[in-house]
Amino acid sequence: MNDAKLHEECGLFGIWSNTDIDCSHLTYYALFALQHRGQESAGIAVNDDGVIIFHKDSGLVPDVFNEVVLNHLKGHAAIGHVRYSGSDRNREDAQPLVTRYKKGTLATAYNGSLADPVGERARLEADGAIFQTTSDTEIINYLLARERVKTHSIEDALVRVLRSLKGGYSLLVMSPRKLIAARDPLGYRPLCIGKKGESFIFASESCALDAIGATFIRDVEPGEVVVADASGLRSIRDNCQDKSALCIFEYIYFARPDSVIEGTSVYEARVQAGRALAKSAPVDADIVIGVPDSGICAAIGFAEESGIPYGTGLIKNRYIGRTFIQPSQKMREESVDIKLNVLASTIRGKRVVIVDDSIVRGTTCRKLITMLKKAGATEVHMRISSPLFLWPCYFGTDVGTKEELISYKYTVPEMQEKFGADSLSFLRIEDLEMLVPGRTRGFCDACFTGNYAIEIPANRALRPFQERRLGENE
Amino acid sequence: MNDAKLHEECGLFGIWSNTDIDCSHLTYYALFALQHRGQESAGIAVNDDGVIIFHKDSGLVPDVFNEVVLNHLKGHAAIGHVRYSGSDRNREDAQPLVTRYKKGTLATAYNGSLADPVGERARLEADGAIFQTTSDTEIINYLLARERVKTHSIEDALVRVLRSLKGGYSLLVMSPRKLIAARDPLGYRPLCIGKKGESFIFASESCALDAIGATFIRDVEPGEVVVADASGLRSIRDNCQDKSALCIFEYIYFARPDSVIEGTSVYEARVQAGRALAKSAPVDADIVIGVPDSGICAAIGFAEESGIPYGTGLIKNRYIGRTFIQPSQKMREESVDIKLNVLASTIRGKRVVIVDDSIVRGTTCRKLITMLKKAGATEVHMRISSPLFLWPCYFGTDVGTKEELISYKYTVPEMQEKFGADSLSFLRIEDLEMLVPGRTRGFCDACFTGNYAIEIPANRALRPFQERRLGENE
Amino acid sequence: MNDAKLHEECGLFGIWSNTDIDCSHLTYYALFALQHRGQESAGIAVNDDGVIIFHKDSGLVPDVFNEVVLNHLKGHAAIGHVRYSGSDRNREDAQPLVTRYKKGTLATAYNGSLADPVGERARLEADGAIFQTTSDTEIINYLLARERVKTHSIEDALVRVLRSLKGGYSLLVMSPRKLIAARDPLGYRPLCIGKKGESFIFASESCALDAIGATFIRDVEPGEVVVADASGLRSIRDNCQDKSALCIFEYIYFARPDSVIEGTSVYEARVQAGRALAKSAPVDADIVIGVPDSGICAAIGFAEESGIPYGTGLIKNRYIGRTFIQPSQKMREESVDIKLNVLASTIRGKRVVIVDDSIVRGTTCRKLITMLKKAGATEVHMRISSPLFLWPCYFGTDVGTKEELISYKYTVPEMQEKFGADSLSFLRIEDLEMLVPGRTRGFCDACFTGNYAIEIPANRALRPFQERRLGENE
Amino acid sequence: MNDAKLHEECGLFGIWSNTDIDCSHLTYYALFALQHRGQESAGIAVNDDGVIIFHKDSGLVPDVFNEVVLNHLKGHAAIGHVRYSGSDRNREDAQPLVTRYKKGTLATAYNGSLADPVGERARLEADGAIFQTTSDTEIINYLLARERVKTHSIEDALVRVLRSLKGGYSLLVMSPRKLIAARDPLGYRPLCIGKKGESFIFASESCALDAIGATFIRDVEPGEVVVADASGLRSIRDNCQDKSALCIFEYIYFARPDSVIEGTSVYEARVQAGRALAKSAPVDADIVIGVPDSGICAAIGFAEESGIPYGTGLIKNRYIGRTFIQPSQKMREESVDIKLNVLASTIRGKRVVIVDDSIVRGTTCRKLITMLKKAGATEVHMRISSPLFLWPCYFGTDVGTKEELISYKYTVPEMQEKFGADSLSFLRIEDLEMLVPGRTRGFCDACFTGNYAIEIPANRALRPFQERRLGENE
Repeated sequence: MNDAKLHEECGLFGIWSNTDIDCSHLTYYALFALQHRGQESAGIAVNDDGVIIFHKDSGLVPDVFNEVVLNHLKGHAAIGHVRYSGSDRNREDAQPLVTRYKKGTLATAYNGSLADPVGERARLEADGAIFQTTSDTEIINYLLARERVKTHSIEDALVRVLRSLKGGYSLLVMSPRKLIAARDPLGYRPLCIGKKGESFIFASESCALDAIGATFIRDVEPGEVVVADASGLRSIRDNCQDKSALCIFEYIYFARPDSVIEGTSVYEARVQAGRALAKSAPVDADIVIGVPDSGICAAIGFAEESGIPYGTGLIKNRYIGRTFIQPSQKMREESVDIKLNVLASTIRGKRVVIVDDSIVRGTTCRKLITMLKKAGATEVHMRISSPLFLWPCYFGTDVGTKEELISYKYTVPEMQEKFGADSLSFLRIEDLEMLVPGRTRGFCDACFTGNYAIEIPANRALRPFQERRLGENE
Repeated sequence: MNDAKLHEECGLFGIWSNTDIDCSHLTYYALFALQHRGQESAGIAVNDDGVIIFHKDSGLVPDVFNEVVLNHLKGHAAIGHVRYSGSDRNREDAQPLVTRYKKGTLATAYNGSLADPVGERARLEADGAIFQTTSDTEIINYLLARERVKTHSIEDALVRVLRSLKGGYSLLVMSPRKLIAARDPLGYRPLCIGKKGESFIFASESCALDAIGATFIRDVEPGEVVVADASGLRSIRDNCQDKSALCIFEYIYFARPDSVIEGTSVYEARVQAGRALAKSAPVDADIVIGVPDSGICAAIGFAEESGIPYGTGLIKNRYIGRTFIQPSQKMREESVDIKLNVLASTIRGKRVVIVDDSIVRGTTCRKLITMLKKAGATEVHMRISSPLFLWPCYFGTDVGTKEELISYKYTVPEMQEKFGADSLSFLRIEDLEMLVPGRTRGFCDACFTGNYAIEIPANRALRPFQERRLGENE
Repeated sequence: MNDAKLHEECGLFGIWSNTDIDCSHLTYYALFALQHRGQESAGIAVNDDGVIIFHKDSGLVPDVFNEVVLNHLKGHAAIGHVRYSGSDRNREDAQPLVTRYKKGTLATAYNGSLADPVGERARLEADGAIFQTTSDTEIINYLLARERVKTHSIEDALVRVLRSLKGGYSLLVMSPRKLIAARDPLGYRPLCIGKKGESFIFASESCALDAIGATFIRDVEPGEVVVADASGLRSIRDNCQDKSALCIFEYIYFARPDSVIEGTSVYEARVQAGRALAKSAPVDADIVIGVPDSGICAAIGFAEESGIPYGTGLIKNRYIGRTFIQPSQKMREESVDIKLNVLASTIRGKRVVIVDDSIVRGTTCRKLITMLKKAGATEVHMRISSPLFLWPCYFGTDVGTKEELISYKYTVPEMQEKFGADSLSFLRIEDLEMLVPGRTRGFCDACFTGNYAIEIPANRALRPFQERRLGENE
Repeated sequence: MNDAKLHEECGLFGIWSNTDIDCSHLTYYALFALQHRGQESAGIAVNDDGVIIFHKDSGLVPDVFNEVVLNHLKGHAAIGHVRYSGSDRNREDAQPLVTRYKKGTLATAYNGSLADPVGERARLEADGAIFQTTSDTEIINYLLARERVKTHSIEDALVRVLRSLKGGYSLLVMSPRKLIAARDPLGYRPLCIGKKGESFIFASESCALDAIGATFIRDVEPGEVVVADASGLRSIRDNCQDKSALCIFEYIYFARPDSVIEGTSVYEARVQAGRALAKSAPVDADIVIGVPDSGICAAIGFAEESGIPYGTGLIKNRYIGRTFIQPSQKMREESVDIKLNVLASTIRGKRVVIVDDSIVRGTTCRKLITMLKKAGATEVHMRISSPLFLWPCYFGTDVGTKEELISYKYTVPEMQEKFGADSLSFLRIEDLEMLVPGRTRGFCDACFTGNYAIEIPANRALRPFQERRLGENE
C-alpha cells in the first residue's frame, strides 16, 4: 500500500468526565494517536456546562490546534475527529459537525460510509432539507433531529436511526447532557470503550487509550448504543445481533499495529498474514524485508515462519509529511526519490523476499524492485499480505477506479512480469481467517470476495470493475 | 462614532457576465471597496458553468484571498460578501452560504436583520430543520428550498419568501443559471444595479461600482426582485410599494461618503447634517474640526454654514487595523493613544467646534475634549450630526445595551458636564429630513424616534431602554 | 506624491528607564506611530540587565510583533526601528543591527544615507571586514568597534565616527549600560528627546512621543551626541555647528503632520506651502480639494489664502495596505481603481483646484484629472506644494531614475498638456523658506536647487539627470 | 538516545552544474534527506551567473521553502544547510552564511565545532571584527576574507584556513565562480562527493546522493580541499594526512542507516554493535526488541547473533514532529505518552531484551521498562549499543552537563536498579572497532575514552565531568 492513497478511515475520540480533567488536551493527544486514520482535517467540540463550542480545520492535528485554542476549549466532555478525504477537500466537511435543532445542540463525529448516501440525501431534500457539506454526518444529524421529536431521548432517537440507516459506520454524538457512542448493526468500523479515573472514553482504536494512559474496557458491540453521562455508563442493545461485518482491512492496513480490535492484536494479525504467505507461497531466499511502514509486520511473520533471516532493506525518510513539494515527473524519472532508499549492504548479492500489505496501482512495486536489483539483489520475490482487490468496496476501502487498479488490468503473471519480480504471490482468500484466529461472527472481505453483507443499491452497484479478472487470477 | 463598535452593515456584491471577464478578481476589488461594511469575514462564490465553488474565511478581504485562490475561483458569475459581527465570531457564519437542496445548489449573500429570527428558526426546526450557523442566511436558504418546490423558478420562490419574511434586508442569490438580487418590501438596506460592458452587477453601495469602473444604472427598488441571466436583466415587482424604510443611518455613518444611495450623495447628506447643526446650534468659535474619519464631512458642512474656518485638528494613524495589540488599561491611563493625536498648532489659543457623527458610550468624547484643552483650546464645543439614540434598533444599528448607552444614562447637560465640553448639541430630529432633500417615500429613523415601520415581536420588544430619557432630553 | 513610491525615511525610537516600565510595549506603540517612515521591516532590541536580545522581521509593526514576542522582550531599555526599502528586500537588512565586538554587544538603529557608502565599505573591506547586509548600519557598527578600542567610552567612539563619516543620518546606539542618540553634524534627519516619568526617550518625530503620552523636551542638535544612562542625560557637543541641512522634504512629505520638527509644525509648514501657492499661482475657481492624504494640508492652506471653499473631492479607501493584490494592467485600463474615488456631488459643474505635495512620474495626475473631468469638473487646476524635482538626492529622497522622473522629461507646459489640466503650477523655490518661518540655520533643498551641503564623491555624482531641464522650466 | 536531545550534527549539500539542471529543487530534496542532521533551520544559497542569492529560516525543510521561493532561487550552483541547535535559537544563525568581502561574495555552509571558538573570536575582535551570529561559520568567513587577500584564489585561502583552524568540521564554500568542499585535517565530520549527469555534488551523507538519483564517487579525504567549477573537479591535498578522527558517533547515532561513510555502511555498523553486545553481554530471553528508531538496527544484530527472535515491541507515532504541544508534567505522570506505545501481544509473558543506541539522562529507560513490565514482560534486559559516556565531547556530541548525565551520577548497577531492569549492559570500548571492520586510520571515541585527537584549550577543558566514574564503571 505504498503506491496509492487508500481511503483511510476517519478516527473518533470522545471523553465524558464528571471530575476535573482537561478534556480538550486529552482529546488532542488521543487524536494525535489516531492521526493515521485521517490527515485531511481535525476537530474538537467540547461541552461546557451544556454549551457546545468547537474548533476544526483542514490539516494535521498539531497544525489545527495550538495552546490558545485548546485552553479556550474548556469542558467536562469532548469529542474529536480526524478525517480522511479523497478528492474533495472542503473545509466545510471537517468534523465534528455541530448543529442546532429543535431540542438544542448536537455535535457528531462519524467514521464510515452509508450504503445509499445519495438516496438518503434525496429523501431528506424532498422533505425540505438543505445541505452545507458533502459529509454523511449531516445526514445523521438530520435524521437524529427528526427522530428526536418522536422519542423521549437522544439515545432513543439514535437507536431508531441505526435501525433504518444501512451502512458501515461508527459514531459519537455529544448533546449538552450526554455523550453517546454507537456502531452500525454489522459493526463495520471499530469503536472501543475505555476509562481513565472517573472519565469514560470512546475511541476508534485502543492505541488512543494507551496514548492517554486510559484502560481498555471493551469494544462497543455491533449495533450497540452506549451512553455516558452524569449517572455513568448505560448500554442499549436493541440493534445488536450475532453477525459481524468488521472490515478485515482494519487489520491489514487501516489500524495501528499496537491497537487491539475485537480481541485480536493488529500486529499479530499482520504477523499471521506473513506466516500464512510463507506457507502458501514459500520461496528459497536469503533475506526477508518489508516495505516500511505497512509491510514490516507481515515481513517479520514471513521470516519467522520461513526461517529466512529478517532484515532492514528499505529506509523511509521519517520526515515524510503531506505538505512537501513533490518531485516533478521529470525529476522522478531522474530517480529523485525522497521517500524510500535501499540499504545496499543488506541486499547486495542476496535473494530477497520483499513483503508489502497490498497493491493498488503497482507503480511503486516496479520501482522498488528496480531499486533492489540495482543495489545488487540477485532475485526479488514479492509477497503481498492480502488477497487481490477484485471487488469495489462501498464502505471505506476506496481502492480507486478500475482504470487505476492493476489487479483489474492484469493477471498475477502479467503483474509479475511488469514489476520485474522473480515471483509474485498474494495472500489466499481462504487464509484471511488466519488473521483473526477463533473469530466466529465473521468479517467483511467483500473487496476480495464480492460477498457484501449489505445489499448495495442498484445505482451504486454499477461499478463491477473486475468481471474479466474473476477466475483468471491465481 | 469613535467610541464604540457600531453594528456595521454587511456588504454585498454580485456580477453576471455572458462574456469573458474575470469575475472573481472584480468581486475581490469590489469587496475591498465595501470593506467598511464588514471586517469580520469575507467570501466569494463563483458559478463555473453551473458548478458553484466558494472560498470564505474570517478576516479582511486582502487576508482571506490570495492570487492562487482567486485564480481557482473561475466562473462567469460571482457573488461576494463582507461581514460584520458583534460578539460571535464563528467562521461558520461567513458568507456566501452555499447549500445543496432538492433542485441543486444555491449561494446566498445577505445583509440585514429579520424582525423575528428566533421565531423563524423555531418554525423551521419544528419542521425538521437543523442549523449550522447563527446567520439569518441559513433561514433564507431553508425558506427558498421549501418555496422552490412549490413554484416554477428560484425567482418565484424568492418573491414568496420576501412577501412572508418580515425584516430589513437585501440579498443576492446565485443559482447555477441565474443571479438574483432583492430588497425587502420596505427597502431598509441599499442595493444598486450597475453595468460593466456586457456584465450586470449588483452592489450594496455605488462606490463598489466606481472601484471596478462600472456604470451605475439604478437602485433595486424596495421589494423588487431583479434577475440577471443569459437572457439579460428582468424585474419582478410583485412586492413593491411606495413606502420606504431606508435606514437613515446609512447616510449618517454606515455608507462610504462617495456612495450615492437612492439619489442622495452620502457626502452631501453629511455636509447637510453639519449645516443643519450650525443653524440649530450655532456657536461663536475660531475653528471647526471633525473627528476623523466619521465626523469630517459634517464638520465641513458646519464650517461652510457658520463661516467659521475649517481645519485639521486631529490626526488619525492611517495604519490602524484590527489585529493590533491594544494598549492595556494601565497604558491608556498613562495617555498611550495610538489612534488619534491632536494638532496643537491648529488648536492652541482657539475656541474649537468639534463635530462627530454620533455618540454611543461617550468615552472617546471625554478623552478628546481633554486632549484638546491640554493642547491649548480655550473652549471646546461639541456638535453631533445625528440625534440622540433613544430607541433600540432591531434592524442593524446595534448601539449596544442600555447600560452602555450614554444617552440612556444621562441628559444632554449631564453629558456636557461629564465630557468637560463648553457646549454640546445634537442634530434635531426634525432636521433629519434635510439630509435627504426632496425625499417623499420616507425612511427609518426609529433609533431616534421609536417610529418602527415593522411591528416588533413581543419577545424582542422587551428592550425599551429609554423610557426615562423620553421628554427629558433636549 | 501619489504616483510613486518615494524613498521614505526610516523611523527610530529609543527608551531608557531606571524605573519599572514596559519598554518593549512602549517601543511597539511608538514604532506604530512612526510606521509612515518605513513599512518594509520592523525591529526592537531590548537591554535586560546588560544582555541585549532582539526581534525583527520584514513587515509592518503589527505583523512583526505579537504579545508573546513583546513579553519576551523584557528590559529596562529598548531601541526600535521601522525601515523603508526600495528594490532590495533582504530580511537581513532589518534593524536594529545587533553585533558583538571586542567590548561587548551593540544594538544600532539608523536613519539616513552616507555620502560615500561604497567608499566606506571598500575601506573597511580592505581592512578585513565582511558584510552580511547592504545597510549602512553595518558600516557604523564596524567604525564604532574600531574607534571604541582607541577611546574610553562608546560615546567617545561615536563622537569620532560622527566627525569622520560624511552623510545625512540620525542614529541610536544601545550598549549594555547606555542608550545614545546622535545626529550627523549637519542634522539632515530629525531626532528629538522626550520624557515619560523617569524614562528618557529619543524618537525620529514628536508624534511618537504623543502616542505614548511622553513630553517633548527638545530636538537633538545637529552633530550632538546625547547619552542616557543610570546617571541621567548628558550631551556632547564636540561636532555641533550653526549650519543645518535639515531635509526640507521632511516638512513636505516624510513626517506626520502632527509632528513638530525643530520648532515648526509639519502641518503648519504644509498649510503655508498651500498659502504660498495660492499667492504665486492664483486661479479663479469654485472649490479647492487635496489629494489624500499627502495633499490635504496644503489644500486647506490654499483654500484659506485664496478664499475659495475647501471641499472633499476624492475619497481614499482606508483599508489600503501593502499586501493587496494589485489590479493587472488590463484591469487598470478598464478603470479598476481601488485606491481613490471621486466625490461627484462635490465636483460636478465646478472649477476645481486640486493640490498635491509633489509629482514624480505623473501617472496618477493624468488619471485623477481625467476622473475629475468625467465627474463633471468644468476646469481642473493642478497645484503642487513643492518645487520641481531637478536634482538627484543622495541623502534619502529617492525620486527614482531620470527616465522615470517626469520633470526631467517634460517642461511644465508639456506636463500640463499631458495631464489634461487647465493650469499647472509648482511651489516656487524662493517660497520654500515660508514653510519654516524664522529659520536662520538653513535647510537642504538640493533636490530642487542642486545646492548640496556635502560634496558628493565623483563616482556617485555621475547622476546629473536634469541638465536639459535647468533654465527651461518655470 | 530516546531520552535526550543530542547535539545532532548539521547537514551540508552542494551542487555545481555546467548544464541546465534545477539546482534549487535538487538541493531541497537532498536537504530533506539530511533533515535528521538538523531540524532547527534550513537554507539554500544559489549562484546565478555570479550573483549569490539565498533564503533561510528557522524550521524544517518543508516549512522553510515553498514552490515560489524555490523557483526564485535559480542558479547553476547551490549550497544548502540544515542546522541543529541546542539552547540558542537565533534565526540569525541559520546557514548558509552569505557575506560580501573585498573580493566579492561568499556563501558558506558548515558542520562541526572548533577547538577554541572563543579564542578565535577574540583574536578576530582584537583586529576589528564584529559578529552578528553565534555561529563558527562567521569565524570561517572572516578568516577566508583575510587569507584571500594574501593568496591567489579562494581555494588557496581555504587551504590556509584549514591548516590553522583547529577543530572537527566539514564545510562548503560557494564563490561566484566556484564551489569548494573541505574537511578538517582529521576528518571529524563526513563529507562525500557524487555526480549526477554533468553535475558535481557534495553531501554530508551518501543518503542525500541516493535521494536525488546521484552516483557516489568517493569521500572527501580528511584535510582535502575539492574544487568544482566550469573546468571540472580538482583536489588540493596539502593538509591531508593518514590519521583520522572520524566521529564514531556518526555510526552509532548521527547518520542515517542507509548512508555509507568512509566505506562502512552505517546500518552494518549498528548491526555489528548489536552482534558485539550479544557476545559480550549474552542473556537468556524470548524476544529482542529495539527502541525505535535508533535502537532497531542493533536489535536486529543482537537477535541474529543470539538466535533469539527479533520482534516489534514498541510502536512510535509516525507523526511525531517538533511543533507538537508537549504533555504537561502532570499529564506525563498520568501516563500520557504520545510517542511510544508497547505492543502487548509481542511482550506478554516473555523475557525481553530491549536495545537502544545510548543513554543520556536515563529518564526514558525507566519509563520504557515500566511500560514493558506492565504489558506483561516477565524479565527486561537492557542492552546499549555504545559504551558509557564518560568524557565531554568538544566536537559535536553534546551530551549535556554532568548534572544531566546519568552515567556520571550512577554506576551501571545503580542504573540498572533505578531503571528496574533485570540486567543492563553497555557495548565494551574494545568492541567499538567491530563497527568499522578493517579500518586502520582510526576514529575519535573520546566521549567514551577521553582520548582526544586535538588538544583542548585550557578554558574549555575545565569540564572533566567524569573523574569519579573512571574505574568505577564496568
